[in-house]
Amino acid sequence: MKKLINAPETAVDQELAGMVAAHGDLIRVIEPNVVVRVDAPRPGKVGVISGGGSGHEPMHGGYVGMGMLDAACPGAVFTSPVPDQMLAATTAVNGGAGVLHIVKNYTGDIMNFELAAEMARAEGIEVSSVVIADDVAVKDSLYTAGRRGVGGTVLAEKIVGAAAEAGADLATVTALCQKVQDNVRSMGMALTSCTVPAAGKPTFELGEDEMEIGIGIHGEPGRTRMKLATADEITEMLAVPVLDDLPFKQGDSVLAFVNGMGGTPLMELYIVFNKLSQILKGRGVAIGRSFVGNWITSLEMAGCSITLLRLDDELTRFWDAPVKTPALRWGI
Amino acid sequence: MKKLINAPETAVDQELAGMVAAHGDLIRVIEPNVVVRVDAPRPGKVGVISGGGSGHEPMHGGYVGMGMLDAACPGAVFTSPVPDQMLAATTAVNGGAGVLHIVKNYTGDIMNFELAAEMARAEGIEVSSVVIADDVAVKDSLYTAGRRGVGGTVLAEKIVGAAAEAGADLATVTALCQKVQDNVRSMGMALTSCTVPAAGKPTFELGEDEMEIGIGIHGEPGRTRMKLATADEITEMLAVPVLDDLPFKQGDSVLAFVNGMGGTPLMELYIVFNKLSQILKGRGVAIGRSFVGNWITSLEMAGCSITLLRLDDELTRFWDAPVKTPALRWGI
Repeated sequence: MKKLINAPETAVDQELAGMVAAHGDLIRVIEPNVVVRVDAPRPGKVGVISGGGSGHEPMHGGYVGMGMLDAACPGAVFTSPVPDQMLAATTAVNGGAGVLHIVKNYTGDIMNFELAAEMARAEGIEVSSVVIADDVAVKDSLYTAGRRGVGGTVLAEKIVGAAAEAGADLATVTALCQKVQDNVRSMGMALTSCTVPAAGKPTFELGEDEMEIGIGIHGEPGRTRMKLATADEITEMLAVPVLDDLPFKQGDSVLAFVNGMGGTPLMELYIVFNKLSQILKGRGVAIGRSFVGNWITSLEMAGCSITLLRLDDELTRFWDAPVKTPALRWGI
Repeated sequence: MKKLINAPETAVDQELAGMVAAHGDLIRVIEPNVVVRVDAPRPGKVGVISGGGSGHEPMHGGYVGMGMLDAACPGAVFTSPVPDQMLAATTAVNGGAGVLHIVKNYTGDIMNFELAAEMARAEGIEVSSVVIADDVAVKDSLYTAGRRGVGGTVLAEKIVGAAAEAGADLATVTALCQKVQDNVRSMGMALTSCTVPAAGKPTFELGEDEMEIGIGIHGEPGRTRMKLATADEITEMLAVPVLDDLPFKQGDSVLAFVNGMGGTPLMELYIVFNKLSQILKGRGVAIGRSFVGNWITSLEMAGCSITLLRLDDELTRFWDAPVKTPALRWGI
């Protein structure tokens, strides 16, 4: 295993210490391992929280700050955070207007966020939660009952965070998050595995001429393992199931999001975006907004995912709103 | 070779088409392969241009836009662009106030930018150029007489671009670029090789327990090949030569830039940043600004580099100024 770490068991703690050293103007870390916006809690503002296993970078700590998350709960790599983290986060960002939990649909995350919500309610904090389950590849999977939560989560965090920043109440913010979930679909693929530090070896093996279509962000199996194809063919294999699922229709405008799994050069993501833009044009779907880069990774896995979000004026306005976090910053 | 491409010979063209599809509000591409800011030329504004081989992402096309570059000349992967590209870029962004070429110190880039500058001058365009050579690892190397230009280039492009945007004249912008070069130092390392699409196989081989310290951004040899060490040890091996070279002294304030070579997870870059912040503290050097991420890569190489820029009020102000490009955006 070749990694810039000191030891698997210290990796997440030292990552968080490095984030604070680099971005102490935006975030702080409280115990047990919660990344909190420096100015939290903000009185009267709905708190927005997410969390999940580390390694899906820059999730979620990189998205903590003005206009996005109030706190993030990072677990060990590819491992759900514990309820104590989620409770600490909820308490830390509670400004009296309630707290929304944005939860990716993985069994551990769901269970622990539910427990934390109950504990927070017992302390008198109003908590709502929305589950993101946007991956059309498979119905159930290794860690999931129902669809997995993937790229749509990033878009939900940005859009919902902007609404909370603008002063929306808990019911409004919750409904907006559900609206994102209802209008977003994703699918991904991998060219290589990644290596979880504590495991020390690749999560799975792929032949030199093989790829996996519909893979999950933990390397969990997808739809099919097949011979390597061209970028255009792969883009088609991902985009068509995504488009057909909602379905996205002629006249729709979308946020087109091509995400890298971590080990894929930006050049390749733009080659995929190029083909995606042609496919969308062929179906009469307009690209309202674009988003290209490593925004929800699987450590150093090579591969990509495509996420489409059907836009309306409200979603576009909140997507465009100012944001200032370690990973995403604009308008300020 | 596992890559999301259609064919090696179409990769750069399709990448650029994808960039335009995603960021047509910011950039356009003119022939021969030049990425130009949509609103260029801007009358009375000094044009700022850079360029070099593709694969050092998001360089340089990703840095074209308001407050940074007016145009970028992407060559084939790891291959210098040709003088015709640089001349086309110079002509396209000439608003009558002259054009600065920011050149990374590689023999091909130097030679071709010099030729292009001569041709542009023959057309009546005032051209100046500054060579960035910030890599302290080696004196000469495979593609370079003198030090290589690496991470310092990104900082120069941001700072100089801001000054040009603010209306500084060609002499001022040129002197500012030289000031960045005089105050910036870098060094990098690799855990793995990368694969140039046209070559189809890794540029070099490293054993399963080996790393290369002082490597260049094309995988050209560095100072030493040695057994894998911890992140803290590696950070020390990079930071100390950088600090001692300028040298950076007690009381200095720096922009601390930890860069990923493309295939290294963000988690690992923050672990490096954490140790770097301790080393700087131990030497009494303050971190004025931080920059962490994949900002000048070697395709999917695993590894990192450390760049330090000694800050003063002028450099800090231009670093903080608004920027809006495909890859870097803040303040707007």
